[in-house]
Amino acid sequence: MGIEEQLAVIKRGAVDLINEKELRDKLVRSEKEGRPLRVKLGLDPTAPDLHLGHTVVLQKLKQFQDLGHIAIFLIGDFTGMIGDPTGRSETRPALTKEDIMVNAETYKKQVFKILDPERTEIRYNSEWFERINAADMIRLCAQYTMARIMEREDFRNRYQNNLPISIHEFLYPLVQGYDSVALEADVELGGHDQIFNLFVGRDIQKAYGQESQVLVTVPLLEGTDGVNKMSKSYGNYVGIDEPPDEMFGKLMSISDELMIKYYELLSDIPLETLDALKKGIAAGTVHPKQAKVDFAKEIITRFHNASAAEAAHENFEKMFRDKEVPDDIETDRMTRSDAGTWLPKLMVTMGLVPSTSEGKRMIKQGAVTINGQKMSSEDLPSGDEFVIKVGKRKFKKLILQ
Amino acid sequence: MGIEEQLAVIKRGAVDLINEKELRDKLVRSEKEGRPLRVKLGLDPTAPDLHLGHTVVLQKLKQFQDLGHIAIFLIGDFTGMIGDPTGRSETRPALTKEDIMVNAETYKKQVFKILDPERTEIRYNSEWFERINAADMIRLCAQYTMARIMEREDFRNRYQNNLPISIHEFLYPLVQGYDSVALEADVELGGHDQIFNLFVGRDIQKAYGQESQVLVTVPLLEGTDGVNKMSKSYGNYVGIDEPPDEMFGKLMSISDELMIKYYELLSDIPLETLDALKKGIAAGTVHPKQAKVDFAKEIITRFHNASAAEAAHENFEKMFRDKEVPDDIETDRMTRSDAGTWLPKLMVTMGLVPSTSEGKRMIKQGAVTINGQKMSSEDLPSGDEFVIKVGKRKFKKLILQ
Repeated sequence: MGIEEQLAVIKRGAVDLINEKELRDKLVRSEKEGRPLRVKLGLDPTAPDLHLGHTVVLQKLKQFQDLGHIAIFLIGDFTGMIGDPTGRSETRPALTKEDIMVNAETYKKQVFKILDPERTEIRYNSEWFERINAADMIRLCAQYTMARIMEREDFRNRYQNNLPISIHEFLYPLVQGYDSVALEADVELGGHDQIFNLFVGRDIQKAYGQESQVLVTVPLLEGTDGVNKMSKSYGNYVGIDEPPDEMFGKLMSISDELMIKYYELLSDIPLETLDALKKGIAAGTVHPKQAKVDFAKEIITRFHNASAAEAAHENFEKMFRDKEVPDDIETDRMTRSDAGTWLPKLMVTMGLVPSTSEGKRMIKQGAVTINGQKMSSEDLPSGDEFVIKVGKRKFKKLILQ
Repeated sequence: MGIEEQLAVIKRGAVDLINEKELRDKLVRSEKEGRPLRVKLGLDPTAPDLHLGHTVVLQKLKQFQDLGHIAIFLIGDFTGMIGDPTGRSETRPALTKEDIMVNAETYKKQVFKILDPERTEIRYNSEWFERINAADMIRLCAQYTMARIMEREDFRNRYQNNLPISIHEFLYPLVQGYDSVALEADVELGGHDQIFNLFVGRDIQKAYGQESQVLVTVPLLEGTDGVNKMSKSYGNYVGIDEPPDEMFGKLMSISDELMIKYYELLSDIPLETLDALKKGIAAGTVHPKQAKVDFAKEIITRFHNASAAEAAHENFEKMFRDKEVPDDIETDRMTRSDAGTWLPKLMVTMGLVPSTSEGKRMIKQGAVTINGQKMSSEDLPSGDEFVIKVGKRKFKKLILQ
């Protein structure tokens, strides 16, 4: 593919490109020397699973792969393990070595749902930071001034509002900037909120005698609530390893407005098709629900397969339109004495509600049915086999033995 | 010695004592448990020699030794070697490992002119910092906030005046604070300008689960110019390893006012004797020059011996009062062709002036005499043997062979 075509692919959906001239020069040189570009994406393995929020930037990385370049997926096991040992920062939990390794393993597995393993380097920043000593750290810190660090908005705000900033927080941008030196990155990708850290990488590379990396950022994906950035900790995420039914349910629950954003950031449909879709919805010729179904199926097909997408759709329709019980309903077996007769407690045991008070509330609202009968009492009816349904989407079968 | 008597000795001449209650508690416990206090003094070996400026705090350390406690003389070979790798800071030159080791050796030798080797631990902070890795450094940095670091005056001033502060400069106070953890210091001594760093040591010890050290600071000694802090780099110092004649000459050159300060900070004479001296000078019954002679002899006796002090005094009197040539004049021997006949060049060769232009200037000022004759020409007179005198105190004999 020609340089201008490559540039067009890279720029599609990007927020920042710092800067186009440097990228063009690197692409030209890459072609001339037959040396693919080294494209870095770093993630701290602070959560056990990757979710759709991660896939926006992973797709961008995949595009570089498809253009013939090398994807470097950097797992920040060193940075993640340090976290914030003082517990002062909510955004940086300290993780144990074990947590990190478990998360890193799932990241590694899940990332290949998108990336081509043949053209991917999986790296860990402990590779170099375990060899780096106190003197090296001080030398690294000598490369950056406080004034530049204070350009980062959250530092500046916290300083002005007299909120504590630990000195070690200053080290994070430098440490992850040094990763670019260790990896000899030509390009670094990230979410738009990472732009400050990526810039530090450019400076640190220069300080260590390397050519500065080009930066490409992508927009942040909002979570299913349409309010916050998608994140495990906000509970508004769709994990790429979630079962098809869960994915389908979550994606059908988003607002029509958010659906358009998800199409823009996550879908592979051509730009013209997307335009037609938007116009159709605005004109009332395309029903938003149908658009959501199509989108949910595209995503499930990507991370599972087409028949799983089809099945998820069918299960969903059964549950919602027909209000029927799905085929593959989960079943708990227990003794009569374990089950007891107080329904709120039994629903907690079965994991259908988080607490007995929530169970009581659901019954009072008429949101609990057993074998198709809406429950108005808190007592389990007589019988050996029950299909208990709580709210719109939670089903479980109970067999007493 | 009783607790109150120990306190009185420690407080004499001190600027800060943080704080008296803690020190009293430590002294009481020390006595009860028969465990001497560990008293830390840290110096970065950035200059090759110790000078009188260092001895103010070394004397304070010696007093702790005399009270039965352990003196820890910490040589900051780790901190000194890092210096400022960017070369931005004038106050922290980066030194090579070799420089550091050479300086550390002379420090070690010279420090025992004051301290008792039997009760002194000589330590190097590379002992622990060579074992500390990047993660440990980050953990150390997590113990301190930017707001507290910015309480240091020079950081605050530089930030407010938009002058650069490198991130690694923030690490210095933490690193030297960690030294107190590694040494389990009960007390740290320092010049009054070090008070901020010493406070950090208190906090870092607490963060690492230790009892905080007590701080004792002493005044800064002005250099012989009476303007700046005594320092090798200002050229206003009296080295404790300098030859007696040099010491004597430098100490006789100070102002009467500075002499009183030197007596206060450096002399061992009893406080009453010092009071009597001050009154005598004020009343005109003691001649300041005599007071300087006595002081210079006290210092030379301390760092050399009494007869060296006597000899230095005699040499000085000869040179200045009698304007005679001292007995032990240094002699250069060279061939007629090496010497040449151009006096300014010859004086440079003999090390009497730094440059030929300075030599010409001195001749023009009538400040050069040869064999007692003031020189008005730039030509060397005829003869085989010359005593060349430049200014008031520089003499050399030249023998042509």
